Parts: sequence; structure tokens; C-alpha cells
Amino acid sequence: MERDASNADVERYLHDHIPMSRAMGTKVIEASGDRVVLEAPLEPNINHRETVFGGSISTLAILAAWTLLNLRLSGDVAPMRLVIQENSMRYLKPVVGPFSAVAHPPDPADWSRCRRMLDRKGRGRVSMRCDVLCGGEKVAEFEGVYVGLRH
Amino acid sequence: MERDASNADVERYLHDHIPMSRAMGTKVIEASGDRVVLEAPLEPNINHRETVFGGSISTLAILAAWTLLNLRLSGDVAPMRLVIQENSMRYLKPVVGPFSAVAHPPDPADWSRCRRMLDRKGRGRVSMRCDVLCGGEKVAEFEGVYVGLRH
Repeated sequence: MERDASNADVERYLHDHIPMSRAMGTKVIEASGDRVVLEAPLEPNINHRETVFGGSISTLAILAAWTLLNLRLSGDVAPMRLVIQENSMRYLKPVVGPFSAVAHPPDPADWSRCRRMLDRKGRGRVSMRCDVLCGGEKVAEFEGVYVGLRH
Repeated sequence: MERDASNADVERYLHDHIPMSRAMGTKVIEASGDRVVLEAPLEPNINHRETVFGGSISTLAILAAWTLLNLRLSGDVAPMRLVIQENSMRYLKPVVGPFSAVAHPPDPADWSRCRRMLDRKGRGRVSMRCDVLCGGEKVAEFEGVYVGLRH
């Protein structure tokens, strides 16, 4: 994924490389190293209660934070591997329609430390946060730790 | 979902009601109120590194724990809604092939309290744990809190 990629480029990358993102109907609404917004419709992500399945909510957030970091790292300390180490989710409300995951930029001090560790040790970790929204309301919160590894 | 459902019945229920479970190629290997084992292949769940995407790992665990509780509650304090309230995941190793999520029964005291609250207040919560395995090794750990609600 290139740093100056368009939304369509990022969407194609996700759909081609992570088939689950395609199965979920993921759309890229915004994609930069400072903010990523991914959206998905209800239908492919529905559950037995006709609301959005928790697995889909979790997955869209994991993907949004990963995409932000991927864009931020490309052309910077790339090429590298970027993997998720741990995450937590809080599901606040039933999700009854199209939903989006908004990934926020990492804390600047945490990000500087991550880059420094990548340069020195070839391995750095950084914490990420996403909000999941539906109809303008926050419906879930995500926190995750990602690890970048030099090839 | 009925308490004495066969693996094939449970698999059909999941695929029919939660399309993401079908998209992931989820198979039901074991399904009872004491233990649920769900398995999924690499291909539909692959990521850009040709290992299993974290979202799929998380989703299979969310689904396994939910299936166990669903089977445990049917014919007991059913009918009810059963939703996830929060969860955490630790990803321990890259997942390089077919993987399975093994849901463990809830702690007996926690389960008794959940049932008591369901009877009294129409709402009870219970903590669940899953291990995710690949090639006989533990590759991820899941903890989740689910809430049951009377109709």
C-alpha cells in the first residue's frame, strides 16, 4: 500500500489481499496516515438478531487501524511486516444498519518511540484506537496493539 | 438453536443466520453446552502476509463462545437474546493454516450467578474463554463477556 494511495487504491488492496474485507463489503471512505474511515453494509454482516454480528464490528476496526498504520509506515520505515498483537473491544449498542470504523492516529510520543525502536531494533509496537459508528452514534470502541517488524 | 442439535444442524444455523460464518468456511467440529470447536480454512481468511487475518481469528472465537452459550441456554432459560458486551484477544503466533477456536465452559459459579440474574432480573452476564489452535499449537487467546436478555 502506497502512502499517497487513493481511496479506490486502498479499497482494491484490501479486497485483493484480505478476502474477508471483500466478503464484508468494506468501502474505504477516508484513508491517510492520520485518519482512516472504513464502512460496511448491514446485509453481509448480519447476525441471527438482524443486527450487525460482533465479529464484523471487531474485524472492521482491526482493519481500519491496520490500514492507518500501513499508510503511515509506507515510504517511512517500510518495507516491513505489521501484525496485530492484542486488542480489546467494547460493544456499546446494537448496530442496526451500515456502520463505520474510524481509526485515530497514534499518540505522538508512542509513535516516536515505535519508530525509534524500529530503527534500532527492527521491531516496534504502537497502540491504536478506533471508534465504530452507526447513524452518527458511537456503537463500539476498539483498542489494539500492533507490532511492526523489519523484513 | 436446539440443545440436542447435531454438528450439521449447528453449522447450518450459523451459515444461515450469520453469513460471515459461511464466508469464512466455518465448520462445526464439536458443539455442546460444555465445549464447542469451530474450524476454518486458511484461504478465505488469508491476509496480505499469507497467514490468517486477525479479524478472522477474532471472529471464529467470538462465534465459538457464542455458540456454546446458545446451546447451553436453549431449553433452559430460553427464549432470550444473547449478545457480546466486550472481548479481548491476544495473538500469540502467526497462523499459517487451518485454525480452530475451542470454547470452554464458563466458570460454574459465574454461570450460576448469570442464570440467577436471568431469572430474577431478566438479564445476566457471563465470562467466556476460547483458545485458538493451529497445527496443535495455541496461537491466540480470547476472553469475552456475553449478556443474556429475556425477550
